Amino acid sequence: MLKSFIPIPKNSDFTIYNIPFGVFKSKSKTSICTRIGDVILDLDLCQKSNLFKDFNLPDGIFNKSVLNEYIRLGKEITVPIRLKIQEALLLGGELEAVYKSGSEIFIAANSVEMLLPLSIGDYTDFYSSREHATNVGIMFRDPENALLPNWLHLPVGYHGRASSIVVSGTEIKRPHGQILPLGSDKPVFGLTNQLDFELEMAFVIGKDTNLGDQVHIKEAEDYIFGLMLFNDWSARDIQRWEYIPLGPFLAKNFGSTVSPWIVTLEALEPFRVEGPKQEGDVLPYLKSEGNKSYDINLNVEFINANGDGMTISKSNFKYMYWNMCQQLTHHTVNGCNLNVGDVMASGTISGPTPDSYGSMLELTWKGTKPIHLSDGSERKFILDGDAIRLNAHCQSGEISLGFGDCYGKIISHLIP
Amino acid sequence: MLKSFIPIPKNSDFTIYNIPFGVFKSKSKTSICTRIGDVILDLDLCQKSNLFKDFNLPDGIFNKSVLNEYIRLGKEITVPIRLKIQEALLLGGELEAVYKSGSEIFIAANSVEMLLPLSIGDYTDFYSSREHATNVGIMFRDPENALLPNWLHLPVGYHGRASSIVVSGTEIKRPHGQILPLGSDKPVFGLTNQLDFELEMAFVIGKDTNLGDQVHIKEAEDYIFGLMLFNDWSARDIQRWEYIPLGPFLAKNFGSTVSPWIVTLEALEPFRVEGPKQEGDVLPYLKSEGNKSYDINLNVEFINANGDGMTISKSNFKYMYWNMCQQLTHHTVNGCNLNVGDVMASGTISGPTPDSYGSMLELTWKGTKPIHLSDGSERKFILDGDAIRLNAHCQSGEISLGFGDCYGKIISHLIP
Repeated sequence: MLKSFIPIPKNSDFTIYNIPFGVFKSKSKTSICTRIGDVILDLDLCQKSNLFKDFNLPDGIFNKSVLNEYIRLGKEITVPIRLKIQEALLLGGELEAVYKSGSEIFIAANSVEMLLPLSIGDYTDFYSSREHATNVGIMFRDPENALLPNWLHLPVGYHGRASSIVVSGTEIKRPHGQILPLGSDKPVFGLTNQLDFELEMAFVIGKDTNLGDQVHIKEAEDYIFGLMLFNDWSARDIQRWEYIPLGPFLAKNFGSTVSPWIVTLEALEPFRVEGPKQEGDVLPYLKSEGNKSYDINLNVEFINANGDGMTISKSNFKYMYWNMCQQLTHHTVNGCNLNVGDVMASGTISGPTPDSYGSMLELTWKGTKPIHLSDGSERKFILDGDAIRLNAHCQSGEISLGFGDCYGKIISHLIP
Repeated sequence: MLKSFIPIPKNSDFTIYNIPFGVFKSKSKTSICTRIGDVILDLDLCQKSNLFKDFNLPDGIFNKSVLNEYIRLGKEITVPIRLKIQEALLLGGELEAVYKSGSEIFIAANSVEMLLPLSIGDYTDFYSSREHATNVGIMFRDPENALLPNWLHLPVGYHGRASSIVVSGTEIKRPHGQILPLGSDKPVFGLTNQLDFELEMAFVIGKDTNLGDQVHIKEAEDYIFGLMLFNDWSARDIQRWEYIPLGPFLAKNFGSTVSPWIVTLEALEPFRVEGPKQEGDVLPYLKSEGNKSYDINLNVEFINANGDGMTISKSNFKYMYWNMCQQLTHHTVNGCNLNVGDVMASGTISGPTPDSYGSMLELTWKGTKPIHLSDGSERKFILDGDAIRLNAHCQSGEISLGFGDCYGKIISHLIP
């Protein structure tokens, strides 16, 4: 087992096996960094201290407020850089003396602010959990034909709003919108009464394509830099009224929360698993071989206004029916071009049992089975002052890592 | 009538009343420019020649490959700058001697390439022509209830793909995708057989908002910098199979074409007209007062592989049921944030008569009434080698202007 000279608390997300990438802001600077245990490593200062002297890195490549330019260097650079950082952090590694000297290369994680680590050009949201799509189909359409005819043939997806993706910790204002009262044929204007979370993961595009290019499924992983946690906040009442025929719009684009750390695909290698067996005739361009899923345990914590939290769902990324390679290949099969920093989210990740559902809508079964909180109150949906914290953790023997918090609190928004 | 010292061909889009903004690329440079008649005016050289000395403009603000930074200066700067340019181009204006001296400030329009003038963060497409929504409803759903229940209550819209928006002249590869053959329950993979255009206009966001902010309808115009022509290429067979329940995705994101010139809202002032009367109870936040529509004549030319063109539709922007202010206000009513350079398209602009429909789908009524071209051939949809040119022209007494070409040719894409 690899050991760092940095003390790593038990169950820390930031083990020596992780080495994720993020962007921090302190009183004096903004820079790209990684984290190990409870310590931030300023990669800009690492570069200035010649840690990367054997690499042909552009000057100041880490002295940025987003990761896009670094990611665009390509995996032939970024993969060995990550390994170099990992090596330098090992017991007896290059940075040990620097750490002991109290250098400002190392900063206490709780003393900095983590920023949204990307400039996100386009954001796509898929709908790739069979259990989630089935639950929605049973609740809102026909239990006998819960899945729509196209669902098993392609990874259904749609475009979301990139501008309103915010980093963990950002408060979300309860949105206004048009809502159709039960039994009425005229909408009213007001605050949503059905504010929900969606437990998702998202991957970050690591390589540009040109308009007209298709990414073959065997090469799809080359285009994925890493993953983040993603909460696709949703206003169900607004959604119900607006979404036919062109899909969700204002019900979703008031805010989506991501975790501040991008965990690389390479770090997730030990956690590869087979995905669900795919039914029927998957078209050749979408056929994927090998273990393209990842065993990532997901946890949803509901926190009331007093700060009391309880786990309301435990799911796993491996439940996704369509894997990331299939999503990416499908996205480009028509020639749609990708840019570094684009984000593609999984859609709600629900598991097979009711305690593994990835939204309030499913957990409360459309409000018919409210969640009982530890303070004795109950919830059908999310109230002002409530917060949701998503976490993700991988474990394979002694190797483990996590994604950090994806946290958001709902605040009130008075009618103007 | 205002007269410039530059000769302006009859029916030119680029009159002294227009002064639109674009970005040109010549052998030696890329810069922001305007156009008058058949001449490009290099605004970077204008600034260097002290034309804007009375303004507090940042150095090199026009020496850019996109307009975003210039637009972000705000209308309090950009409106008087445009008037200054107009004044300088008048007979007897500041630039007349410069023009006659053969200065490189003036460049022949046909000697430069026009670029996509914006870095587009997010792109939204509305669906705001009642005639178009009705035609689609009649063809694909229920003639008795052609409009969906929400349509008259809100400007239906959805997110599109920003990365694949290209400038006029860019060739578009016929896309591949999944298509459900008639009578089958299994999709096949192949090239679209139902490639269509959509006649749209798009407006450009000129002012940022913060997440959580709402733009009141009375202030919406302050957030609109100007308009472009927009062709939302669509693959109808791919669309039909994929779009339920989350809306169009790969059927649209293989390419959208915009005209290279942004015509400012101020230039369109003489062409304001009342919009269609709105039915029923429009909710108060969407009620707009005054003339919020614009009389912009639209023309669609179909050009075959031999270069023979014919007009296949004449429509008008004034047919839009929901105006731009209503679209923008609705978009932000939930707190969704806007960024300078975001693009919001109208949706297909169909008029009341069959010769004013804005797509092949409607013009041929689902392929049942093919279009007869002047070469004797007919079209249900667009073939390889065919091209579509959109134009727009406004006329009010002696005052006129146009938008330039929005042109795209479809090229073949062999199955790999």
